[in-house]
Amino acid sequence: MSGVFRVGTGSTPGGQPDDRLASLGLALPALRPAAGTYRGFVLAGDLLFLAGQGADGWTGRVGADLPLEQARKAARDCMLNLLAQTRAALGSLDRVRQVVKVLGFVACTEEFRDLPAVLDGASELLIAVFGEQVGGHGRSAVGVRALPKGFAVEIEMVVQVRA
Amino acid sequence: MSGVFRVGTGSTPGGQPDDRLASLGLALPALRPAAGTYRGFVLAGDLLFLAGQGADGWTGRVGADLPLEQARKAARDCMLNLLAQTRAALGSLDRVRQVVKVLGFVACTEEFRDLPAVLDGASELLIAVFGEQVGGHGRSAVGVRALPKGFAVEIEMVVQVRA
Amino acid sequence: MSGVFRVGTGSTPGGQPDDRLASLGLALPALRPAAGTYRGFVLAGDLLFLAGQGADGWTGRVGADLPLEQARKAARDCMLNLLAQTRAALGSLDRVRQVVKVLGFVACTEEFRDLPAVLDGASELLIAVFGEQVGGHGRSAVGVRALPKGFAVEIEMVVQVRA
Repeated sequence: MSGVFRVGTGSTPGGQPDDRLASLGLALPALRPAAGTYRGFVLAGDLLFLAGQGADGWTGRVGADLPLEQARKAARDCMLNLLAQTRAALGSLDRVRQVVKVLGFVACTEEFRDLPAVLDGASELLIAVFGEQVGGHGRSAVGVRALPKGFAVEIEMVVQVRA
Repeated sequence: MSGVFRVGTGSTPGGQPDDRLASLGLALPALRPAAGTYRGFVLAGDLLFLAGQGADGWTGRVGADLPLEQARKAARDCMLNLLAQTRAALGSLDRVRQVVKVLGFVACTEEFRDLPAVLDGASELLIAVFGEQVGGHGRSAVGVRALPKGFAVEIEMVVQVRA
Repeated sequence: MSGVFRVGTGSTPGGQPDDRLASLGLALPALRPAAGTYRGFVLAGDLLFLAGQGADGWTGRVGADLPLEQARKAARDCMLNLLAQTRAALGSLDRVRQVVKVLGFVACTEEFRDLPAVLDGASELLIAVFGEQVGGHGRSAVGVRALPKGFAVEIEMVVQVRA
């Protein structure tokens, strides 16, 4: 995948990540209102800290209520919400210098082990949109008991921004 | 709330956040000793990373042992512990440039969904103390199985510091 | 422990952390392949963000399948994997300016409370390798339902790097 989508160093044409989204048949959703007294993002220096995003329509427990394929789509939709926040913060996805860190929580059964495959639904979207060099990121995946509104997946992210 | 408490840009009078705490009838607690081999905070450049804080007296599982209103107080008390660490790190809460990110863990039942309302107990305190502009922050809320010492809520935080 | 291992300010001899590892009878393991579409680390400015690491051979639930002493070894082995990633990122552990933040997840039973003691298995290794001044770090410990591959412990870390 990295060969196909690799971003040329230092010469990324304007609009590319948005073009790639479109070529994948995806569009960034409207910004979801925060579920409480917090913001969708805060920029500190060149680090953009994004609040956790669930994905509407994907509730329940992975391994019981949702099979893996649906959980992967839930993770992808969380990432679309995160990218919508990123564009709102920066004006354009082109200003992403690199994705730094993804932390993903999955509401799942006691026996579910395939958390990385769920989160890959989000990570593969990052690579497809930004290429391996900009979109490659560190990640942790954790299986938890409950998420806001009964979401199946919740993901937060840190992004480094171009000066 | 942001209208009432908004901090004037670039001219925050010294001592304000502490004054606000007092006007809310709150005082920062004594620093709790770390529960293990770690520190309450580490400053890296202008980012202050605060270790997770529970709140003594608030144990059990939200949704079973604690109703929502008590869980909100637990979250507020976690934040008071975090602010005590912040003042210990910086000398004064006035040195907070902006609150960046809050990550809150809630020990809860299988069915509990209202995690954002619990964490609002902490987030609303930040807005009341710092105002919307400085105190507004990104956040994730996660429902988990167990926390240190049986705490109902544990919160960690990242803060950006004035140069 | 901090007295024995304290690193002299500004004059850490080259190779020290690696020497200390050896004197503890420990060696850094080979880099584990990522469990999905992500990287073991990303450097953003002088902050190194390390992806979550489990430890092969340590699976199950702490409090049921693993007693505390084994869980502490699992946490230590997670940290060895994190230090292997750190050395791969930086060339040498000497380039660590300070360990900033550790976030540890423990798959455990409903009743397990001693999460800090588990994580101390990782934190004590950091102090032994880097000394208190460089190795001291903020930390949160969380008890969760499930981790990738059934791991008992998963730890992620942020490190500040020397310029």
